[in-house]
Amino acid sequence: MTVNLAIALLHYPVYNKHREVVTTALTNLDLHDIARSARTFGLERFYIVTPSPDQRDLAARITGHWQEGWGAGYNPDRKEALDIVRVCNNLKNAVNDFQAGFANPVKTVITGATDRPNSIAVSQLRTELEQNADPYLLLLGTGWGLTDDCFEAADHILQPIAGTGSYNHLSVRSAAAIMLDRLRGTR
Amino acid sequence: MTVNLAIALLHYPVYNKHREVVTTALTNLDLHDIARSARTFGLERFYIVTPSPDQRDLAARITGHWQEGWGAGYNPDRKEALDIVRVCNNLKNAVNDFQAGFANPVKTVITGATDRPNSIAVSQLRTELEQNADPYLLLLGTGWGLTDDCFEAADHILQPIAGTGSYNHLSVRSAAAIMLDRLRGTR
Repeated sequence: MTVNLAIALLHYPVYNKHREVVTTALTNLDLHDIARSARTFGLERFYIVTPSPDQRDLAARITGHWQEGWGAGYNPDRKEALDIVRVCNNLKNAVNDFQAGFANPVKTVITGATDRPNSIAVSQLRTELEQNADPYLLLLGTGWGLTDDCFEAADHILQPIAGTGSYNHLSVRSAAAIMLDRLRGTR
Repeated sequence: MTVNLAIALLHYPVYNKHREVVTTALTNLDLHDIARSARTFGLERFYIVTPSPDQRDLAARITGHWQEGWGAGYNPDRKEALDIVRVCNNLKNAVNDFQAGFANPVKTVITGATDRPNSIAVSQLRTELEQNADPYLLLLGTGWGLTDDCFEAADHILQPIAGTGSYNHLSVRSAAAIMLDRLRGTR
């Protein structure tokens, strides 16, 4: 691999509305939208992470439909986006797959909608991506966000995207698009 | 109104895959995602435009579900986003509604994924939004994009969002999020 940024969408361990730790269900449009954004901004890997075998089968069926046979011929742009998707049962396996393309160790960068201490600005991460050869894996949560344990375990915490006021409830699809544009977009 | 930028999602007149002019069907997640992005970046209006009465009823039902009764109590953040949605049968009525809040005439700014002559950079539009009091309505197409007639009729054409290579197939939800961040986001 040549691009030192990849993205992972985690369906576990995340909070639900009542702050219970759950596995969320795969959302078809998360997969398509984030794959298309990732491909547009040049990423070579987008990991779908879920411990549920049924959900991994579903993710594989969705990507397969557009990569082979009828779907691939009907919409080749969609095939090109889904080519970068890899389905994993946990984060460790996603990190290991991404690691295989690089000599330096993978650094995980966790994202969320809440301000947390010791977080880094998106502009700082952009500079790091441009100036060093370390591979970075951007972690996105589903549901009501990744658990506190995930934030403690990550190498970096990314500052949330600031809107213009106190309302900040972007969908994970929109947040991913904005982060990738800020990290790799041309202006 | 105090914010001189609004957004409109047009379901007609747009091309389909075979370059026929069609009315596309409303996509539930377009409505939610773009409303949440628009609200996060401080917009006060998001217009859903479709000539189909059935589709307008559907849009009104979706927004109503989260604005009244069970949905409003279950998810007040969603209510707050959907409060800015207005459903219109054509672009003219969307322009008229937005115009009512301003003295200067509304300028339409059309968006698409293809490079076109005489288009303005997003950064230039950001400067105009900050420096003058004219209200701007950002037009987003569905399907395979707004028709050439729409591009000829608009006051400005916005340059497409550049990725890192030739692949440029963002979903309309992702494109809207990136444009609003570039136009109004804090860095």
